[in-house]
Amino acid sequence: MGFWKTWFSTPESVATAKTPFEEQTVEAGSNSSSSSDRIVFSTERDIDLYELEELCDAVGWSRRPLRKVKKAIEHSFLVASMWQVRGNQKRLIGFARATSDHAFNATIWDVVVHPDFQGKGLGKALMKYVLKKLRSEEISNVTLFADPHVVDFYRTMGFMADPEGIKGMFWYPH
Amino acid sequence: MGFWKTWFSTPESVATAKTPFEEQTVEAGSNSSSSSDRIVFSTERDIDLYELEELCDAVGWSRRPLRKVKKAIEHSFLVASMWQVRGNQKRLIGFARATSDHAFNATIWDVVVHPDFQGKGLGKALMKYVLKKLRSEEISNVTLFADPHVVDFYRTMGFMADPEGIKGMFWYPH
Repeated sequence: MGFWKTWFSTPESVATAKTPFEEQTVEAGSNSSSSSDRIVFSTERDIDLYELEELCDAVGWSRRPLRKVKKAIEHSFLVASMWQVRGNQKRLIGFARATSDHAFNATIWDVVVHPDFQGKGLGKALMKYVLKKLRSEEISNVTLFADPHVVDFYRTMGFMADPEGIKGMFWYPH
Repeated sequence: MGFWKTWFSTPESVATAKTPFEEQTVEAGSNSSSSSDRIVFSTERDIDLYELEELCDAVGWSRRPLRKVKKAIEHSFLVASMWQVRGNQKRLIGFARATSDHAFNATIWDVVVHPDFQGKGLGKALMKYVLKKLRSEEISNVTLFADPHVVDFYRTMGFMADPEGIKGMFWYPH
């Protein structure tokens, strides 16, 4: 019980951005990005679903019906996207979203960074952005389900696996 | 990846109740309930928060601000309650709720059965009711975070811990 309840007993007040777009300085390796590139984060939900599908294709995810993806985005508590901006053009290079009860718990789903932009600290930057947004809403439990190969990545972000023996469980039909 | 995507590829159509209240025959031991008792399940959200707090107190949960509990209930995808009905009186004896993106994922939180009614199969009946409701909405991933002493209970309900090495993880501030 203590574990569930002690988080954020004195929540830090984090200012939220006034506009959905927010620029952040990210240490992205210079090898694939010119000096004129900017990395921009957004909570804007009006994402081109085909562009998102392309991003998910790039990391090998199975395709999902766009109708359902649209519904899931509409009903997510937080939708976070990461963009490479060059002059007037922007390219979707990262995405994450979270479900929540708007009070206690949030669960992060569908975290993706385009392979061309992996290994540059951008996944970490995206997650930091997501966590900052969730904390600013006074969400006290932030959870996710991590595939084995990203468990260590989330550990470095401060996530704990099975704290106090609490197990993530999944139900599927018999 | 296959694990996340293969569930419910052919979703079974489950009829939802027309009214929020639904009676179910539950094999509850006869030692504490008279033959005139009925166990009733509901998805009605208009739950007396003090009655809910009393139920959570009875299982030893830490108190939470009612303002936040109210908000969490409002923003949950599913709110399930279990009642003992005697004549014109009903008593809240169980509760569970789920967050969801209304499309792919749902996460069950705050599952509680009053100690006087534990060990009678009512927790199982409540969870069956929750799962039926979630399936009727075509939710394909049903997840939860189980405290160590209830992991086996959820296993008997068909939940799997760490399937394919997927770990439930929690974030807390540094």
